[in-house]
Amino acid sequence: MAVNLKPPDPAELLPVDGVELGFAEAGIRRRGGRDLMLMRLAPGSRVAGVFTRNSFAAAPVQVCRRRLAAQRPVRALITNAGNANCGTGEAGVRAAERTCEAVARAIGCAAAEVLPFSTGVILEDLPVERIEAALPRCVATLAAANWADAAAAIMTTDTVPKAASRAGTVGGRRVGATGIAKGVGMLQPDMATMLAYVATDARISQPALERLVRETADASFNRVTIDGDTSTNDSFVLIATGRADAPEIADAATPAYGELKAAIVEVSRQLAQSIARDGEGATKFITVQVAGAASEPEAVRVAKAIAHSPLVKTAFFASDPNLGRLLMAIGNAGIPDLDVSRVDLWLGEVKVIERGGRAASYREEDGARAMRPAEIIVRVALGRGSTETTVWTCDFSYDYVKINAEYRT
Amino acid sequence: MAVNLKPPDPAELLPVDGVELGFAEAGIRRRGGRDLMLMRLAPGSRVAGVFTRNSFAAAPVQVCRRRLAAQRPVRALITNAGNANCGTGEAGVRAAERTCEAVARAIGCAAAEVLPFSTGVILEDLPVERIEAALPRCVATLAAANWADAAAAIMTTDTVPKAASRAGTVGGRRVGATGIAKGVGMLQPDMATMLAYVATDARISQPALERLVRETADASFNRVTIDGDTSTNDSFVLIATGRADAPEIADAATPAYGELKAAIVEVSRQLAQSIARDGEGATKFITVQVAGAASEPEAVRVAKAIAHSPLVKTAFFASDPNLGRLLMAIGNAGIPDLDVSRVDLWLGEVKVIERGGRAASYREEDGARAMRPAEIIVRVALGRGSTETTVWTCDFSYDYVKINAEYRT
Repeated sequence: MAVNLKPPDPAELLPVDGVELGFAEAGIRRRGGRDLMLMRLAPGSRVAGVFTRNSFAAAPVQVCRRRLAAQRPVRALITNAGNANCGTGEAGVRAAERTCEAVARAIGCAAAEVLPFSTGVILEDLPVERIEAALPRCVATLAAANWADAAAAIMTTDTVPKAASRAGTVGGRRVGATGIAKGVGMLQPDMATMLAYVATDARISQPALERLVRETADASFNRVTIDGDTSTNDSFVLIATGRADAPEIADAATPAYGELKAAIVEVSRQLAQSIARDGEGATKFITVQVAGAASEPEAVRVAKAIAHSPLVKTAFFASDPNLGRLLMAIGNAGIPDLDVSRVDLWLGEVKVIERGGRAASYREEDGARAMRPAEIIVRVALGRGSTETTVWTCDFSYDYVKINAEYRT
Repeated sequence: MAVNLKPPDPAELLPVDGVELGFAEAGIRRRGGRDLMLMRLAPGSRVAGVFTRNSFAAAPVQVCRRRLAAQRPVRALITNAGNANCGTGEAGVRAAERTCEAVARAIGCAAAEVLPFSTGVILEDLPVERIEAALPRCVATLAAANWADAAAAIMTTDTVPKAASRAGTVGGRRVGATGIAKGVGMLQPDMATMLAYVATDARISQPALERLVRETADASFNRVTIDGDTSTNDSFVLIATGRADAPEIADAATPAYGELKAAIVEVSRQLAQSIARDGEGATKFITVQVAGAASEPEAVRVAKAIAHSPLVKTAFFASDPNLGRLLMAIGNAGIPDLDVSRVDLWLGEVKVIERGGRAASYREEDGARAMRPAEIIVRVALGRGSTETTVWTCDFSYDYVKINAEYRT
């Protein structure tokens, strides 16, 4: 059901020098298949991450935060699908640590140099012994060309593996960036989602990398939403192996930072959009553009008010140009002094709302035509300022209910 | 599909001295049937209201606000179903005013003494001439016993008319309170909803009445949510005709105020709960109780985080004790310093979460049993303070999508 989303072509995913990926079936995910993924990083790699703001941050998220804060080198990332290791208390933290210890033994590094990630059902104990048993197979498959297989091994209810890759230049020298992600529901604001790993061979200082991961998240994963829910396990990790033949990027003020950021944001946006395209039950991919806002937070609030409204999302599913629901959603964004008589709105190229009311030129058949495609752009002009933003989402179908009602059965 | 909700028995709805209700079919609602409702108030009646916070407040809401602010007496309330008269600009305001003028002519009062209400599709012009044509039939049916018919005449996608009635005493003298409401979706916070009118024959000063309408809304309609959306037309109006043989309630500090408030809140809560019971596609009625909060807003945030989560609501529909989603929802409430290791949660009588993790005594079959009934109470203890609140909602089914995808077809 994913909207215009194809599995990645392994040949189009650039290997990143210093990153190897392995996978195995550990028997954690109920429906079977590969559910364990290991990334091994070359010495000298730098890593930065942003994580869920949910108060019930899962055990692996707690461990990742602690290890990244300690500024130890990172040599491996281990991810399991099928069990989130969340709401599992101290025992869950210990299980995540045991997973890291097993990886450390398998590849020869310190346990503190391994980051753990989990996704799947919540409040069930992580079967660490299955991970331990599958790890040798995972290590045996480690290879730089395995991005597509790695993307498949971290899926839960995803229907399509998600990967993206770009070549760019930094200071005239070629660098590459490749990433994978998983996630189709329980997605939302501020760490919309899921697990996402983007690696580059560029060289960049740790402070600049930490800035880059936040700025990239705000331009990509924090701009996608499926159902307004935020997972307990959301993680986005940026890896820079530094093996490219390009000068080190010292800080964000340099032109080189901007060059690298362009490539990283492009990869991350494509991954973020893939998540909306594969949103649970999605039949349409919706881009919400808000312009004329007084500030970025205001633009985001309006865009997400539209993207979150179940009434708007069911209207998209039905291809019904129910303009009233769009108006209602904008009105619910909580912009205190919004002058509705300055609000314009377009569905695709059709202007439907003009100065807060139905556009004089609007005809229902034009609206119906604009709602028909599988990809729809909603543009809102608020008439308050010059800030713009874009949020991606999907429609809300029978299958969303079906998938979520039957998730554990 | 409404959950344990029967049509009101007209014999059980107490007439309120000073209130007459009439109804007619004006041909505004596409599916036909009665869609126009007139309430005539005796001279001396006092009226107070609270309205939507949506920035796109509909034309009738704008007119109501202006008239109530002007402190003119109110002699009639006119409501049409099928067209919300929203996003209709100055022409919409003029249409609402024309409706009031027609009522004024029909019953012999000033147009400024009539309050207009509309519910239905947004962004379409209100067919005032149909209201004008139907008004004589509406006036001809005016009678004190018509509460049940009035409740039916304001329905849109409601499947059951909503009415409630209570007798109480104020200062030892008998007073009555009767109310009707409509609304099944696009409901949420802060004026959850819909149209609701509650009338009492008690005598109460205008300032005390205005306080009472706000306090009642916070204890009833503002505690029900279906889908997190807030309508552009939400209105709750409290009417006190003052015809009971009871002393006037001067202010909120008097015991009599508390006596009246008890009756009004009881009627309003029953109406609010009826709305959740008749939520679009509802198969379950969910009561979310949050205790141990540090403040009322915090308790409401946690309760609504649970009540709004599509993932939680689909799990209720599936009778799936997916505890992780409940945990996730609490964690998304945005309580900055929430200590999750103090959080307990019960489904009905089954303790499922203890100190932030799965309760030691919890067995999946107990959870499954607790999720089966058509009415479920979720209790959360936050362990932060002593404030409690309750929010009512319903589950999220295939039919929610169906109803909203096909609303205009």
